Amino acid sequence: MSDVAGESGTLYGVGVGPGDPELMTLKAARILGEAPVVAFFSKRGRSGNARRIVEGRFNPAAEELRLEYPFTVEVPVGDPRYRTEMAAFYDDAARQVAARLDQGRDVAVLCEGDPLFYGSYMYLHDRLAGRYAAEVVPGITAMSGCWARAGAPMTRGDDMLCVVSGTMDEDGLAERLAGADAAVVMKAGRNLAKVRSALARAGKLDRAVYVERGTMPEETVVRLADKPDDDGPYFSLVLVPTERRTV
Amino acid sequence: MSDVAGESGTLYGVGVGPGDPELMTLKAARILGEAPVVAFFSKRGRSGNARRIVEGRFNPAAEELRLEYPFTVEVPVGDPRYRTEMAAFYDDAARQVAARLDQGRDVAVLCEGDPLFYGSYMYLHDRLAGRYAAEVVPGITAMSGCWARAGAPMTRGDDMLCVVSGTMDEDGLAERLAGADAAVVMKAGRNLAKVRSALARAGKLDRAVYVERGTMPEETVVRLADKPDDDGPYFSLVLVPTERRTV
Ligand SMILES: C[S@@+](CC[C@H](N)C(=O)[O-])C[C@H]1O[C@@H](n2cnc3c(N)ncnc32)[C@H](O)[C@@H]1O
Ligand SMILES: C[S@@+](CC[C@H](N)C(=O)[O-])C[C@H]1O[C@@H](n2cnc3c(N)ncnc32)[C@H](O)[C@@H]1O
Repeated sequence: MSDVAGESGTLYGVGVGPGDPELMTLKAARILGEAPVVAFFSKRGRSGNARRIVEGRFNPAAEELRLEYPFTVEVPVGDPRYRTEMAAFYDDAARQVAARLDQGRDVAVLCEGDPLFYGSYMYLHDRLAGRYAAEVVPGITAMSGCWARAGAPMTRGDDMLCVVSGTMDEDGLAERLAGADAAVVMKAGRNLAKVRSALARAGKLDRAVYVERGTMPEETVVRLADKPDDDGPYFSLVLVPTERRTV
Repeated sequence: MSDVAGESGTLYGVGVGPGDPELMTLKAARILGEAPVVAFFSKRGRSGNARRIVEGRFNPAAEELRLEYPFTVEVPVGDPRYRTEMAAFYDDAARQVAARLDQGRDVAVLCEGDPLFYGSYMYLHDRLAGRYAAEVVPGITAMSGCWARAGAPMTRGDDMLCVVSGTMDEDGLAERLAGADAAVVMKAGRNLAKVRSALARAGKLDRAVYVERGTMPEETVVRLADKPDDDGPYFSLVLVPTERRTV
């Protein structure tokens, strides 16, 4: 790990897994034990989930660089303010990270799950990976953590797995879910009524499993058909395991 | 970890990641350090890839239980012998594992990547998880390991990711690849000519990245369009990262 002036530091996108700190990789643990700067995204006034996962597990002498999202409530991706404000936010975050790299200090950016799979780290990677040495440490994705907890074999043989976002419109969701052998619906929480209806249209509601805060202490794993309400937090997804049993 | 007679042992499906031993999780490392029995699948006469990944990283006093596939060359999934022979093989493997669990010994079954994602462990889980305590330890999937090495942001915002198998027919592949924002083609190796042609039909050959033995010492990462031949080993896949850059 470089912590000297002269040559630039390395940018690490470090996947910390879905919640259980033991689901970090040995490599993530090593890099976090050494990195002179640990950066993470968080909502205003919140500690940040990725930061919470690594509590007590990074270099105690590290500088903590908190990158605070500009919105206190989530602005929908469709809102015109979203693009502009988020782009400005990531530009500024990249500048803050670059300032440390220019000092020759490595920066480990914490990422929930896997950094390159629906993660915010990508927006720093877009801006910095061309100019600085960058290395991505893959993480256990939320879906892997959740299907392990559900004990649900997801895909076999030549199955097709489809990962969609609950933010899609219902017709699009229903069509994708119908065409896949197995599926995962990310960002299910506040879209649960729509997701439920799309699954029913695709004939797959029966097989669907709802997982909330998978691998965290307050985890819930339940058949979606048995969940009495359509309320779910941000950290929730729906699994549709394959129906096939090939051998 | 239980290693006493009287009560049954626990079955652990332990994901060991895509190849780099440092990509095991802390939890996998802990369980492998303690398990009295370490089981793994291998082809006849070969050491087994998962076994190789954990070399020197499991309980030295553990019994090694090698479960040898009945075929020296791969029999295609469509072949009628496949189902029968494989079912008999997994039945027998399950019996061997169950005998250890009945002695009250925990059994850790090694799985390349993630156990519940196109993995052989599932066929033991099918047969044993109802009768014994079973816990799945998720692993870094091959695709996560490969896209980390490619440094390729895969999915953003409400992107749809499609994971298909190179064993599918070309029309099916082309259709799936055309409809997805991002895609992964597993089992690409010996299907590479077909995969290349399906990607071209879907207009996505340009974006495709071929990764062979990702995170292993002999790794190759190359644009598929720049790969001069259609030869690939078993441990290869093709990534089609999203084209979008949302902010
Ligand atoms: C911005 S994405 C981040 C995905 C992450 N990079 C990964 O590799 O899985 C956030 C979504 O991931 C899912 N998620 C993350 N952690 C989760 C958990 N512990 N349990 C259930 N879903 C989770 C939820 O669907 C949430 O809306
Ligand atoms: C039976 S599947 C096992 C998948 C594994 N359980 C996972 O979670 O990724 C085997 C396929 O995974 C892919 N694969 C596994 N390890 C790989 C690696 N290190 N590099 C590239 N592809 C790999 C190849 O496509 C191979 O044909």
